Amino acid sequence: MKVIGILGGMGPLATVELFKRIVEKTPAKRDQDHPKIIIYNNPQIPDRTAYILGRGEDPRPQLIWTAKKLEKCGADFIVMPCNTAHAFIDDIRREVGIPVISMIEETAKRIASLGIKKAGLLATTGTIVSGVYHKELEKYGLEILTPTEEEQELVMKGIYEGVKAGNLDLGRNLLLQIARILEERGAEAIIAGCTEVSVVIKESDLRVMLIDPMNVIAEVAVKMALEE
Amino acid sequence: MKVIGILGGMGPLATVELFKRIVEKTPAKRDQDHPKIIIYNNPQIPDRTAYILGRGEDPRPQLIWTAKKLEKCGADFIVMPCNTAHAFIDDIRREVGIPVISMIEETAKRIASLGIKKAGLLATTGTIVSGVYHKELEKYGLEILTPTEEEQELVMKGIYEGVKAGNLDLGRNLLLQIARILEERGAEAIIAGCTEVSVVIKESDLRVMLIDPMNVIAEVAVKMALEE
Repeated sequence: MKVIGILGGMGPLATVELFKRIVEKTPAKRDQDHPKIIIYNNPQIPDRTAYILGRGEDPRPQLIWTAKKLEKCGADFIVMPCNTAHAFIDDIRREVGIPVISMIEETAKRIASLGIKKAGLLATTGTIVSGVYHKELEKYGLEILTPTEEEQELVMKGIYEGVKAGNLDLGRNLLLQIARILEERGAEAIIAGCTEVSVVIKESDLRVMLIDPMNVIAEVAVKMALEE
Repeated sequence: MKVIGILGGMGPLATVELFKRIVEKTPAKRDQDHPKIIIYNNPQIPDRTAYILGRGEDPRPQLIWTAKKLEKCGADFIVMPCNTAHAFIDDIRREVGIPVISMIEETAKRIASLGIKKAGLLATTGTIVSGVYHKELEKYGLEILTPTEEEQELVMKGIYEGVKAGNLDLGRNLLLQIARILEERGAEAIIAGCTEVSVVIKESDLRVMLIDPMNVIAEVAVKMALEE
């Protein structure tokens, strides 16, 4: 079995969530059938959106430092439960000798395979501005619907004042509100494009399909860890 | 802030649970206020009870190997979400230069401070046979009530065929059944003395107080990480 490395801390609760999903998706009847997982939960990685919007510290040194720790500690590949951090994945990949599996690339693959043509995106402003989902989905000729500026402020509030601050109800209410607006505008699926969204919105909350990149990457990680 | 090291994998779900509780108990409004946490989830550590009962592989080499990995990766202290593994804590402490905080020692301190004189113990047979709780609680003149042999078989079933195998309902039913028997026999508190018990039994399930060593160690870990 391969050793899974989780580059976490962005935020800690989302990291717990990915860890939990990997364990739950592993077909095992006893402890010893589960793969090894090394998690470096580094919440000091500077805010990704703040940097992308030009008003914060560069998160790349800490991202690279943490990735190298995972490599040194014995991880065979790395996954990162933070959509916005994927804006910097090339920089990380350049600095480590082990694969960094992209949650965005894997999610785009999944959406295309499901025959979806138009997906609504709930994500941080950093993720939207950096275009990480646009770039990947374009490869498959898929369209992304994003909230208006005012609506996006509510999404950010739901993520930061809601989930990251531990106010899960606030987070859920705001994010669900905007998800439903995107549904009304024709989204055939909603991408929970921020790991904090994964913490509070479930598929049963929506009329359309919920694409949860965290589920996608959990399934990919388990598959990679267990395959020969 | 100090870096928390979690020696996990015993089992993975209990490790997720401790990680979650540490994050939830950290007073933080943003990611960057949380402490760093390194988790080495090593489910290949041989079964602790099997070894204690004379019919399994020695878990100490893997325990020590994992503890050293955490130290090398930068942890400032280690906690282990597995009660039975504490039978080997001296061996681990001898091999690393960083503190290994004992969930059992901290729990005994907590029980004594609450004025409890007689506590019921829900734990693996390995934990009971190794006497880790008896040893610590005796220091405070406290008494432990344990299930009969037949009842203990149900506890083990709840832990292994229930929680560790992912059948949480089965685990909960069996463990609750025995907890209530201990209550009837005069336990002033029930110790959830196996991390799998912490996953399925909550205080509101019982008439008496539930002492959850996982909560105790989560609180201690947060305190140590944040203090100067």
